Amino acid sequence: MEPIVLASCSRRRQDYFKMLGLPHKILPANIDETVEDGLSPEDFAKKMAVAKVEKVLYDLSGKIPQWVFGADTLIALDDIVLNKSKSREEARQSLKKLSGRSHKVITACALFCGKTKNIDCRIATTIVHFAELDSEILEWYLNTGEWQGAAGSYQIQGLAGCFINRIEGSFSGVVGLPLRLFYLMLLENGYDYGNYVI
Amino acid sequence: MEPIVLASCSRRRQDYFKMLGLPHKILPANIDETVEDGLSPEDFAKKMAVAKVEKVLYDLSGKIPQWVFGADTLIALDDIVLNKSKSREEARQSLKKLSGRSHKVITACALFCGKTKNIDCRIATTIVHFAELDSEILEWYLNTGEWQGAAGSYQIQGLAGCFINRIEGSFSGVVGLPLRLFYLMLLENGYDYGNYVI
Repeated sequence: MEPIVLASCSRRRQDYFKMLGLPHKILPANIDETVEDGLSPEDFAKKMAVAKVEKVLYDLSGKIPQWVFGADTLIALDDIVLNKSKSREEARQSLKKLSGRSHKVITACALFCGKTKNIDCRIATTIVHFAELDSEILEWYLNTGEWQGAAGSYQIQGLAGCFINRIEGSFSGVVGLPLRLFYLMLLENGYDYGNYVI
Repeated sequence: MEPIVLASCSRRRQDYFKMLGLPHKILPANIDETVEDGLSPEDFAKKMAVAKVEKVLYDLSGKIPQWVFGADTLIALDDIVLNKSKSREEARQSLKKLSGRSHKVITACALFCGKTKNIDCRIATTIVHFAELDSEILEWYLNTGEWQGAAGSYQIQGLAGCFINRIEGSFSGVVGLPLRLFYLMLLENGYDYGNYVI
């Protein structure tokens, strides 16, 4: 089986890779993730995922790997991207915006194939319905620290489950790696699962 | 904070309790879970969840605890309950039935309150859409062993994510403990979260 370079420092993506048992190595790609005006959330997510893959290819300076995978997860409310929060106060404002409403979680996945030199990029979108957050549950959640480093300032696989009424789409996509989409992208780009799956 | 007796040997429910950080003790309730004719899947799940709570109350022989929680998760396809599989062959047949179709995952939650002597029972229902499973991915999944002890012979939080197209409802409900519902049941039955949440 061919190792996949995972262009991500997200612990959740790394956990999913471990669970899948696919051979891989981690090479985080540091890129500028400042949200740009004029791009839809979907196009911005795709741009970021591709940029992560390209950054790793650049960092490898000519040594072309067989597979590189990058992803970008973001939250869009009324088609406006919510940035990751840098402070507790920013997280509070972000969660207040999401309170009692539905938003989109978009995860773009980019896969580079060394054989074709092509980057395949696709997205998984999930709708997440938040309950109303009163100030008590909001402060409690901020105390958990889960908002740190998380798109939308919450972690669906964590305690945020207490105020999420329902989702429509891919749970793993909200966590950061839409498993079904990832599986299909590998398959359709000719990844050799060997004795693993096929 | 008042300890909750968790009437379940499900490791996933225990993990959620640990994540929530609520004081609790585990007293698994061994009951007969044979599916009965004539009951809807929803009513059967409720009956099982309540039976688990009642069994724990019986086992405690008169010492009335403040809180007892029991739950039951089952899969219904066309309103027929799929039993847990006892063998690899049963799991294969069960997964073949789910292939390329949608099914319901019902988790009934029963909460006994020592103060009121009441058992509150509610359900969370989630629709899960399976992709088509060809024989290769089916045999691979059977090899993972995830089917063992699982309602519907799959674990959504595990590798089954590779063939689940989408869900509508509560992810944690499919895992076995619908977090939002559980949070509301405790709150509305007068559980004192202390400094924890409220």
